[in-house]
Amino acid sequence: MIISQEILQQFESRYRAMLLNSLAGTKQAVLVGTRGQNQGVNNVAIFNSLIHIGANPPLWAFIFRPDTVKRDTLQNILDTGVYTINHIAVEDYQKAHQTSAKYEEHRSEFEACGFSPAFLNDFEAPFVAESPIKIAMKFEQKIDIALNNTIMVIGSIQFIEIDETLVGSDGYVALEKANLLSCVGLDAYFKTERINRLSYAQTHSVPEVK
Amino acid sequence: MIISQEILQQFESRYRAMLLNSLAGTKQAVLVGTRGQNQGVNNVAIFNSLIHIGANPPLWAFIFRPDTVKRDTLQNILDTGVYTINHIAVEDYQKAHQTSAKYEEHRSEFEACGFSPAFLNDFEAPFVAESPIKIAMKFEQKIDIALNNTIMVIGSIQFIEIDETLVGSDGYVALEKANLLSCVGLDAYFKTERINRLSYAQTHSVPEVK
Repeated sequence: MIISQEILQQFESRYRAMLLNSLAGTKQAVLVGTRGQNQGVNNVAIFNSLIHIGANPPLWAFIFRPDTVKRDTLQNILDTGVYTINHIAVEDYQKAHQTSAKYEEHRSEFEACGFSPAFLNDFEAPFVAESPIKIAMKFEQKIDIALNNTIMVIGSIQFIEIDETLVGSDGYVALEKANLLSCVGLDAYFKTERINRLSYAQTHSVPEVK
Repeated sequence: MIISQEILQQFESRYRAMLLNSLAGTKQAVLVGTRGQNQGVNNVAIFNSLIHIGANPPLWAFIFRPDTVKRDTLQNILDTGVYTINHIAVEDYQKAHQTSAKYEEHRSEFEACGFSPAFLNDFEAPFVAESPIKIAMKFEQKIDIALNNTIMVIGSIQFIEIDETLVGSDGYVALEKANLLSCVGLDAYFKTERINRLSYAQTHSVPEVK
């Protein structure tokens, strides 16, 4: 069937959001750790909009919708300038989903959802102790997207904690060995399985590597 | 182990790009179809940076690195104002990867890689006939990211061609039924499997849906 723009506009808003979020496909699920400036509450929330912006300098971004419960995370990033990105073990998917509930500001989602805050290298923002890969981020730039009032927040990677057995000789991180959580839309959780790795495509053929 | 920012900076550039691209996790792999303004060549290239910006209006984005072979795609989008996004069947992963090779400008990657262009609803940009989900896009805005000279291109969804059996009563698109391709970094291809869908998280518990 064809879904036209006119039909899209007529859909009920949650139906349309579900349709387009899930249609955008599989994303890595990550937990973002922040600290509230005033009360020092450790906040953690699940995100599916992690964007690789570039490797040199090492920049990643998220998209924020200011009208969602995740505005605490955005405010904490802007207030403190630091945050953490934590990959999620597949078996923690229910706890990770629970971080999307609308807890009161003084309540730590770590405690409420069964995760433990961890601190590394004197970095101010909390990591998720249960996470197999932990990444320290520094806020770099906020870009307002006027088309729909969303906000892109770009940060630079400060350091990465990772099991060295996951990193290959060419730099490839074998996430498939760490059994990490992916998601589609806001509520469907996925595991992934590697089919193959291919070498740099030439104009004549596609040989396999390893 | 801890990989500090200083160590990251010392890595050889391809190693660092591979590390950070793959660390950003699983992404949906899609084929972007465009048409060259001058010679009318139908272009198709694989992308892993599809970003859901919002559902109302329906906006999706890509990140472009101007120094890659995909600048033809960017130029065609800016020249013609239209493009297509095409999900990829898992079994087509080698052909899809092959679209990342640096073909000469007058050569159509459709022909070179074994895909067929398809045209729907008089839309000017070519779709991928083999794709199970086809989406027509109109260019809306280009945002230059000064931090590393990348470019975010935002487009609006014009129409979607999809098998109606994939769309659930709440709008959820069951990509898992269509056996679609995901990827990590620029060369590792993945299939995915749904674990579960969870209902909207409340502050007390996480019941399952369906």
